[in-house]
Amino acid sequence: MSDWIEAVAWNAEGLVPAVAQDATSGEVLTLAWMNRDALRRTVESGEAVYWSRSRKALWHKGESSGHFQKVVEIRIDCDADAVLLRVESVGGVACHTGRRRCFFNKLEGAGGERRWVATESVIEEPRGHG
Amino acid sequence: MSDWIEAVAWNAEGLVPAVAQDATSGEVLTLAWMNRDALRRTVESGEAVYWSRSRKALWHKGESSGHFQKVVEIRIDCDADAVLLRVESVGGVACHTGRRRCFFNKLEGAGGERRWVATESVIEEPRGHG
Repeated sequence: MSDWIEAVAWNAEGLVPAVAQDATSGEVLTLAWMNRDALRRTVESGEAVYWSRSRKALWHKGESSGHFQKVVEIRIDCDADAVLLRVESVGGVACHTGRRRCFFNKLEGAGGERRWVATESVIEEPRGHG
Repeated sequence: MSDWIEAVAWNAEGLVPAVAQDATSGEVLTLAWMNRDALRRTVESGEAVYWSRSRKALWHKGESSGHFQKVVEIRIDCDADAVLLRVESVGGVACHTGRRRCFFNKLEGAGGERRWVATESVIEEPRGHG
């Protein structure tokens, strides 16, 4: 019954990285982690559920912020050790910092002057952990 | 000089997951891993260099297949524990199976009938490890 779950190459901690991509804009929003229960709940609920490694708990994305991710499509890669979710990002804010996406830091400069620069501003004041 | 490298939240094995996204189509192509040396070489060469966890060696993507990834942009996320590369995928084949992208398996079906289905065909016969 759950062969599709066991087909995933879970790591030694029982986790797999999950990339969330905006289904409309194509932007890569977040990289989070899932355990078996998170993936099962994501599939059954149609909303992204991750495993928070810092809080060691299931994390229904949006539970504290309202910024749920409605799942349009779920994929795994050739080695089955990475998940890709195409999602609708509710409220247009995917990052717990209140930005549209988590990947707001871009490497700029050259040689010894390289640095990460935040290229996007906060849309909404942060609420909770996302 | 290398503060931008140490700003990355390397995991206990000294690695970080790196997502490669096609800069033109927006497709998520691969999820691979980098160590400090791989990230440094990626930045200096302008082509994606990963760390192969299976071969325990640096892996200049395309070295055996010709399918290099030319780097357009490098980002890290809010927690600095994930990298995003926007790339030009040389030859239009990013997967070692000869497909356009690694995420060719889609979850289909419902209830007890769910399964991963390959939704894309092989464009080119595989050569080497990618």
